Amino acid sequence: MTKTTPNHTQAVSGWAALDSSGKITPYIFNRRENGVNDVTIKILYCGICHSDLHYAKNDWGITMYPVVPGHEITGIVVEVGSNVTNFKTGDKVGVGCMSASCLQCESCKNSEENYCDKVQFTYNGVFWDGSITYGGYSKMLVADYRKPRAAPLLCAGVTVFCPMKDNNLIGSPRKNIGVIGLGGLGHLGIKFAKAFGHHVTVISTSLSKEKEAKTKLGADDFIVSSNAQQMQSRQKTLDFILDTVSAKHSLGPYLELLKVKGTFVIVGAPDKPMGLPAFPLIFGKRTVKGSMIGNIKETQEMLDICGKYNIMCDIEIVTPDRINEAYERIEKNDIKYRFVIDIDGIEFVLVERVLFSELKFHLRKEANRI
Amino acid sequence: MTKTTPNHTQAVSGWAALDSSGKITPYIFNRRENGVNDVTIKILYCGICHSDLHYAKNDWGITMYPVVPGHEITGIVVEVGSNVTNFKTGDKVGVGCMSASCLQCESCKNSEENYCDKVQFTYNGVFWDGSITYGGYSKMLVADYRKPRAAPLLCAGVTVFCPMKDNNLIGSPRKNIGVIGLGGLGHLGIKFAKAFGHHVTVISTSLSKEKEAKTKLGADDFIVSSNAQQMQSRQKTLDFILDTVSAKHSLGPYLELLKVKGTFVIVGAPDKPMGLPAFPLIFGKRTVKGSMIGNIKETQEMLDICGKYNIMCDIEIVTPDRINEAYERIEKNDIKYRFVIDIDGIEFVLVERVLFSELKFHLRKEANRI
Repeated sequence: MTKTTPNHTQAVSGWAALDSSGKITPYIFNRRENGVNDVTIKILYCGICHSDLHYAKNDWGITMYPVVPGHEITGIVVEVGSNVTNFKTGDKVGVGCMSASCLQCESCKNSEENYCDKVQFTYNGVFWDGSITYGGYSKMLVADYRKPRAAPLLCAGVTVFCPMKDNNLIGSPRKNIGVIGLGGLGHLGIKFAKAFGHHVTVISTSLSKEKEAKTKLGADDFIVSSNAQQMQSRQKTLDFILDTVSAKHSLGPYLELLKVKGTFVIVGAPDKPMGLPAFPLIFGKRTVKGSMIGNIKETQEMLDICGKYNIMCDIEIVTPDRINEAYERIEKNDIKYRFVIDIDGIEFVLVERVLFSELKFHLRKEANRI
Repeated sequence: MTKTTPNHTQAVSGWAALDSSGKITPYIFNRRENGVNDVTIKILYCGICHSDLHYAKNDWGITMYPVVPGHEITGIVVEVGSNVTNFKTGDKVGVGCMSASCLQCESCKNSEENYCDKVQFTYNGVFWDGSITYGGYSKMLVADYRKPRAAPLLCAGVTVFCPMKDNNLIGSPRKNIGVIGLGGLGHLGIKFAKAFGHHVTVISTSLSKEKEAKTKLGADDFIVSSNAQQMQSRQKTLDFILDTVSAKHSLGPYLELLKVKGTFVIVGAPDKPMGLPAFPLIFGKRTVKGSMIGNIKETQEMLDICGKYNIMCDIEIVTPDRINEAYERIEKNDIKYRFVIDIDGIEFVLVERVLFSELKFHLRKEANRI
């Protein structure tokens, strides 16, 4: 048990890291009662995001232990507060990265609550009532369902979707798109870019991923980043690059792949500063941007587009007792492409293996209503 | 004497660095005869750009010795080729950074010759005839005056002007602009931003520059970058930052000064990669861009705007025998704000002390015609 507020009376079984070893163990904690604006969700599945590992091991120096990770959550509504009109018991819902924002600042008013100064996350955040937030590695979640939390709030999909939308890559003429890193984010980046009709080049450290990138995911070209000849031969060929790598790296060689006035968007979050050489930036009038998840409206738009183009996240299901094994495999890049924790084994048969991921979930939302 | 081509028959007195000591010494070399597309210019003044020092000392590893620096050149036309219609003998002209571009690529066709793959610079470049280009630290220059070299091509002014134009800061509502570094580029950045009606914050390593920045240059606010409290108090206050610093630095603390979706433009060129932390980029959806000088059209636009707003570069005149001393003072930041070499002392009285700089030159162009 850890610090809670008086109304935190509901005991919940979950899984947490207790210290910077990052080891995940069973953990019982309290959640708040279901308030008038709350929805209580029985959690069925929770995706494992690479940032879960960073928090579990305190890689970013901001972890408040014990930490219950998980911000790619799907489940079923089991209770709704009296003010909640947009959800009812039995609805399948998703919860993503955000648990609260101020609702009053310019960002919140512009429906850009993900850039609110006071945004709080689904785990390792501080909720309005002063309690530490705990994520989706647990049996049950109480979520405030007033805007901006009134729709599925997910992570990987919207993280790669928003930069493409912001940079006019939906409905545009065919462009040459690069995707750096072939993991959870990267494989979705390829799928979105292909769905939007672009030529996609994957840039990876590992030659072994070439076949899969091309045959399964539909990439048109593949470069091994350590192969100087390959990197050289593609200089100034790309209009846009999505960098999904969360390990420290220098941007110089990648920037050279961009055409003049090309755009490079960073969505991975290395814990150490990346090297940014001035020359390729200045001589190519290039742009480097950051982007973080997406707002509610963008998340819904992303889900609609996944439905339209039949875009799904490739996943591997693990049981809660194997989270640590999953973490080890993520660190070795041994996952295609996202682990999902089966929180509630009983429901597993009932709602079918394909219920989760955030994307598949959407596709099944109507067809497979409980 | 160094390698030339057969038509390089005109001996010229100049000043060059012969090796990576960077020491500037008198140097005689040959320029080509005035061809049908050429204009021969008697050089009166040449500005000293910080990049002249970088080339003289081979800081960027690309110097071809001997190097005759100088790309902020003003002078008088003394001979024109038979194809030249836009200049005549006696015209006062300027020559900036570029000596040639391919004229055929997409960048050249879009009048963006400064981003041409084959752009060649006024010095340390390779001209169409295979000769090494020599810059404005010399008595005379032969310049090809076909587009894109048919107008004054200058450096510092257009380098800071273009990012403001590209980011819609001309004629826009009042914005909060930051200028990092108070040197040749920085002091012009302040002047342009103030002329365009913005609130200007100078970020400098040196508290001693505050008074001058505010009282003489018109800055509204001043932050010492090493003062954590000052930096902290200005977080998320700026819409746009122009970074003119050519020493290696980390971008993190500066990015934090930007509002969400703010823009950071790099025009200085540190020889080592800068540190770019992912978090302030991602969490603030911020943008980092590079920008290099400007094209011919932008250069003319910049000069017209300088005329309209009476923007001038603050300069200190030096004689050619004192270039090394000027270099030493530049390295110590002891210059307000640009050295200009008086190449031809005899003309000095004739055309007035104010003839140079690239900006003052323009203002006098009509009034003081020889």
